[in-house]
Amino acid sequence: MGDQTHNLSFILDPKGPTLTYEDRPIPHLRSPYDVLVNVRYTGICGSDVHYWTHGGIGTYIVREPMVLGHESAGVVVSVGDKVKSLKIGDRVCMEPGVPCRRCVRCKEGKYNLCVDMAFAATPPIDGTLAKYYTLPEDFCYKLPEGISLEEGALMEPLSVGVHIVRQAGIKPGDSLVVFGAGPVGLLCCAVAKAYGASKVISVDMNEERLDFAKKYAATQTVVAQKESGEDAAKRIIEAGELGLGADAIIDATGAEPCIQTALHALRTGGTYVQGGMGKSEINFPIMALCTKEITAKGSFRYGSGDYTTAVGLVATGRLSVKELITGKVKFREAEAAFQDVKAAKGIKTLIEGPADSSVVVGNGENAASS
Amino acid sequence: MGDQTHNLSFILDPKGPTLTYEDRPIPHLRSPYDVLVNVRYTGICGSDVHYWTHGGIGTYIVREPMVLGHESAGVVVSVGDKVKSLKIGDRVCMEPGVPCRRCVRCKEGKYNLCVDMAFAATPPIDGTLAKYYTLPEDFCYKLPEGISLEEGALMEPLSVGVHIVRQAGIKPGDSLVVFGAGPVGLLCCAVAKAYGASKVISVDMNEERLDFAKKYAATQTVVAQKESGEDAAKRIIEAGELGLGADAIIDATGAEPCIQTALHALRTGGTYVQGGMGKSEINFPIMALCTKEITAKGSFRYGSGDYTTAVGLVATGRLSVKELITGKVKFREAEAAFQDVKAAKGIKTLIEGPADSSVVVGNGENAASS
Amino acid sequence: MGDQTHNLSFILDPKGPTLTYEDRPIPHLRSPYDVLVNVRYTGICGSDVHYWTHGGIGTYIVREPMVLGHESAGVVVSVGDKVKSLKIGDRVCMEPGVPCRRCVRCKEGKYNLCVDMAFAATPPIDGTLAKYYTLPEDFCYKLPEGISLEEGALMEPLSVGVHIVRQAGIKPGDSLVVFGAGPVGLLCCAVAKAYGASKVISVDMNEERLDFAKKYAATQTVVAQKESGEDAAKRIIEAGELGLGADAIIDATGAEPCIQTALHALRTGGTYVQGGMGKSEINFPIMALCTKEITAKGSFRYGSGDYTTAVGLVATGRLSVKELITGKVKFREAEAAFQDVKAAKGIKTLIEGPADSSVVVGNGENAASS
Amino acid sequence: MGDQTHNLSFILDPKGPTLTYEDRPIPHLRSPYDVLVNVRYTGICGSDVHYWTHGGIGTYIVREPMVLGHESAGVVVSVGDKVKSLKIGDRVCMEPGVPCRRCVRCKEGKYNLCVDMAFAATPPIDGTLAKYYTLPEDFCYKLPEGISLEEGALMEPLSVGVHIVRQAGIKPGDSLVVFGAGPVGLLCCAVAKAYGASKVISVDMNEERLDFAKKYAATQTVVAQKESGEDAAKRIIEAGELGLGADAIIDATGAEPCIQTALHALRTGGTYVQGGMGKSEINFPIMALCTKEITAKGSFRYGSGDYTTAVGLVATGRLSVKELITGKVKFREAEAAFQDVKAAKGIKTLIEGPADSSVVVGNGENAASS
Repeated sequence: MGDQTHNLSFILDPKGPTLTYEDRPIPHLRSPYDVLVNVRYTGICGSDVHYWTHGGIGTYIVREPMVLGHESAGVVVSVGDKVKSLKIGDRVCMEPGVPCRRCVRCKEGKYNLCVDMAFAATPPIDGTLAKYYTLPEDFCYKLPEGISLEEGALMEPLSVGVHIVRQAGIKPGDSLVVFGAGPVGLLCCAVAKAYGASKVISVDMNEERLDFAKKYAATQTVVAQKESGEDAAKRIIEAGELGLGADAIIDATGAEPCIQTALHALRTGGTYVQGGMGKSEINFPIMALCTKEITAKGSFRYGSGDYTTAVGLVATGRLSVKELITGKVKFREAEAAFQDVKAAKGIKTLIEGPADSSVVVGNGENAASS
Repeated sequence: MGDQTHNLSFILDPKGPTLTYEDRPIPHLRSPYDVLVNVRYTGICGSDVHYWTHGGIGTYIVREPMVLGHESAGVVVSVGDKVKSLKIGDRVCMEPGVPCRRCVRCKEGKYNLCVDMAFAATPPIDGTLAKYYTLPEDFCYKLPEGISLEEGALMEPLSVGVHIVRQAGIKPGDSLVVFGAGPVGLLCCAVAKAYGASKVISVDMNEERLDFAKKYAATQTVVAQKESGEDAAKRIIEAGELGLGADAIIDATGAEPCIQTALHALRTGGTYVQGGMGKSEINFPIMALCTKEITAKGSFRYGSGDYTTAVGLVATGRLSVKELITGKVKFREAEAAFQDVKAAKGIKTLIEGPADSSVVVGNGENAASS
Repeated sequence: MGDQTHNLSFILDPKGPTLTYEDRPIPHLRSPYDVLVNVRYTGICGSDVHYWTHGGIGTYIVREPMVLGHESAGVVVSVGDKVKSLKIGDRVCMEPGVPCRRCVRCKEGKYNLCVDMAFAATPPIDGTLAKYYTLPEDFCYKLPEGISLEEGALMEPLSVGVHIVRQAGIKPGDSLVVFGAGPVGLLCCAVAKAYGASKVISVDMNEERLDFAKKYAATQTVVAQKESGEDAAKRIIEAGELGLGADAIIDATGAEPCIQTALHALRTGGTYVQGGMGKSEINFPIMALCTKEITAKGSFRYGSGDYTTAVGLVATGRLSVKELITGKVKFREAEAAFQDVKAAKGIKTLIEGPADSSVVVGNGENAASS
Repeated sequence: MGDQTHNLSFILDPKGPTLTYEDRPIPHLRSPYDVLVNVRYTGICGSDVHYWTHGGIGTYIVREPMVLGHESAGVVVSVGDKVKSLKIGDRVCMEPGVPCRRCVRCKEGKYNLCVDMAFAATPPIDGTLAKYYTLPEDFCYKLPEGISLEEGALMEPLSVGVHIVRQAGIKPGDSLVVFGAGPVGLLCCAVAKAYGASKVISVDMNEERLDFAKKYAATQTVVAQKESGEDAAKRIIEAGELGLGADAIIDATGAEPCIQTALHALRTGGTYVQGGMGKSEINFPIMALCTKEITAKGSFRYGSGDYTTAVGLVATGRLSVKELITGKVKFREAEAAFQDVKAAKGIKTLIEGPADSSVVVGNGENAASS
């Protein structure tokens, strides 16, 4: 495995917190169903940055040095004895959370709700910003010819979007409003369109982002402004010609005014999905939920079938993620990607993983430059 | 039709507001599918009282004198040409809201969400506290032998409970917490048990009501006390041995502390139903909804199949409503029933409607004394 | 209403059976919610032909002269007092079956299963092959600018396809096999693609039809041949690289060999939909259904939301029906269209309805030549 | 572990086929999540007998000597390092099929459809008719105080019934017809009642069995007789006052006449479940399925939540299985139980497993005589 004796990793040290590098041991396959992946590209999301800036999220506190990162794609460099679906050299995107497979939630098909989930870069589990990472084969998805490793790293936020849109129950002909035009909000717009939504209205305060949303996937945009939830709802309904209200609304912001507006902009029987994270508690129009018989759902990470759907949507050309990659940095400059997210600069900055040059990538790509 | 020349009605006069009586014309059948019912028993609920004490609910304002009441049962005294399922003398419970049957919501099977609903005692539609009331035959449900007209009047709040429990998706083996041990909360407990819930935990501040709940339908009770939502949730989970949390929680109070507790007491993937009405907006643990991927649903009135299910549950002995009838007053003393509800006295006080003595009740009951 | 004194109709006379013309009275609006439509284009389907050639279908026997036709679009020439969504001159496609709106099935959102359905050209209800036809406004769907009246007539078979695909539960990424490449089978392929199916495999004996299917909507085609159901299934699975079997299979033929093959070609837990009509009973691999836990569903006509979805799919460009119109004949030559279907010539031959030249069509089209 | 050096097993030798005994090695725990169970009671079902009499079922051929049996309960005698929910001495019922936990079906919550399922007494996997059997802890369900080990052995066929009734979607108020009054049919009746079915009509040719069904769980019985499916359907609908037909029908026979009758006795939109096994192909009224838009489902074994529900139904007294145990034989007389099933004698004959007398059963029962 050539230079695999070293496993350079990008680490958050809680005594600081500071971002550093460390040369860690190459992980062993933990079961005969595991594969070892040479990580090639990793995107950064708000949660990674939050761990860095706050040392934790909710009850998840970084107490020991932890490798960051969980939006990755790479190349298989080693496979366990019982692995059937993958071989060395295969290009894969990596689903970074492995559930227990044994609890009630896992066995009823909702493994994202497993309380024993081991999720990359959620303390105390190390993340994927390292040269090597090990996963069970069924959490690595082979990338078809037409999808590059860079795009592969985007399958993680795309799977978040797929899960949210599935929670929203979008079907052909539905009208949808999406609050927030950051990466997840944009991907929700794109997925909803691929699921057949006829109206996809993107709402944000940032007009630049809305311009991007319009070009990318939204059928319409509305600039958020200071006003009551009822007024904002009325304005969105009028702008979108939504009649009695939208069929579904997704919040990808976690912001109170958006959530309030959403409940007022839904039709009776409509569906609301909380995709964005924000304050623990907010002022919520509970009587609107009650009397309009709204269904409000949380959406947490991704589960059964989401990655497969994400890869399929891109492979069949129904959705494109290339446009969202607005920057790339070398592994040794990883902190720059964190700074970008913190400053809301660009949409997605990818960090190049240290390529293992000894591996011949399946489709003949030079291992080091795919 | 004997003494049907008069249609004594119990009316809320918005210029006051005061409760009065008026002799109104007997309503005509509006279609050949309609029946005319001599109303025999009517229960009073919080919304009736709210119209009286506040002159309106939300955007529904009583502007003209309006007949109150919507929880009724009676005897059919006249049927339209095309009526097939009912005949004169049939004892029926009355579903008091008639939808348009033509809109998208009606045609998709959610007629309770019809925006053109004509609902008894919701302005400007007159209610059922009158000698006669007309309804389409398919909104009148024949009472089987074993169900009395008094019990028939309880089919309305029972249908509210059936709808809530259906929204909660209760199935055999589920654990459920119900906040509020008033009529609707109690009926939710009973319906949930009939739907197979193995744990039904009733929570209320009023220990007397909890005693009743325990005897009536709850498998367990917990006294609500002043504490944080997290603490209350922890206490309920421990008391009920709910492990990772309840499968479903119903709020029949509309009170903020209950709603907050509920979100914290649910397991991942659990279901919350807002059945009770209260303040328009409350402080809501939205991140608990998001990260536990909770489904929160409103429940509004009752719809397709709810009345049929309600009648069936009582007819087959799976559920009893007799215990809830804690008082009966004559029609001319109707205001007393309103005072009872206002004072939270007893559980259900029924108002006897003015019997039409000329009608022979189907099962041989003396028309005036069933 | 100009020349509306005459209502030329195309009639099946059961004493023959022969196809004739008759000048019938212009129908009255039966309710204030009704509209009168000047029928402009009508497609013919197998059931129309079956009534002609056999005098009935199953228990539906043509006993009195009956107007044929039910796939129509036209122009509104008169509206009832309470009609809100339509006005004179509006171009509409016509959903030709009006349910009772009062039974359990109607109220639970499955009005296509209403046993009191009045369906055009199903005895004894007259069909739409007449100059004028009356329908409730909510069964007439306004055609957006981009959809012609010719295409409007195709909304009926398209709605059949929408209903079938919904019954199949197709979602993005699914693999689907469709037996039969006639109008309904082709439309199922197109709808399934619009619903996100990644593989849509059309199977037929007729290679010409398969060529059309491939150009039109199928991702792949397989020529049916004489062999056992197991062998055919194996061949289709291999050709389509379906692994453990297809996620869903639609039969649009009613033919025994197709149905048998379908059950063997599904994966465990897959969905089968019977869309095509054929023999009452066939030899069916029931143990495959049992041990693979297959869900087999009938699909009957169309119901809640299907027409709206059909119009929306064409309006948003997700699906095109123009290609299917392979012929047009004058009203006085209607029998030719029946001969075409009988001979399986072309895909859809439309019959032009006698235009009412006094009506100005909404979008400025000359009424007589849209 | 006392006398655990021997693992007496009841074996089908395909060179015969003959039933013999063999002393096999005590199985090792295959993972730290496994437990070893001393099997105490085992029921016999038709499939066990079929392997004996035919040497195989469908494509499953017994090629090597195989231990029979899969309906068992026992006492935990050893637990792996990571086992949390069970301890030595716990009384458990055993779910005898362990899925791969990694495939698409497993991860979507349908592990009974896993193609890599290792199922007891389905070749080449050994069954549970042995002194010891090993299973993952999550496939062993602790029996509450009120459920005996004998009843525990019935949890397997009860789980079959739970799965079938869930497939049928039974909810309070539904009408159900069950064909077949053998163990599974009877249990379907009982489960359906516990799920709230208001009418449960048992149909069988054997009047003795119907008498039992009536006493046990059916609300009504109908004797099957020679007649057409349409006539039989008419007769059942009339007897059960089912109006337009039953809401759901379960076939627990696999017999063609029952299946035909079922399709004709369902209402439009009704649900049919194939629970019984019989001929691979039968004559099936496919047009009834199509035009009534029936949903026909297979039901295969049991899956997520079924065992938990089964145990819960008995533990909460909603359902009783004691009545079904009509015989008990010693392990060394196991063949007698097979003869009973073959001769359709009694309902369930249990085989006592060789007790491991060294184990103290959790609830103080004498290990050898619980």
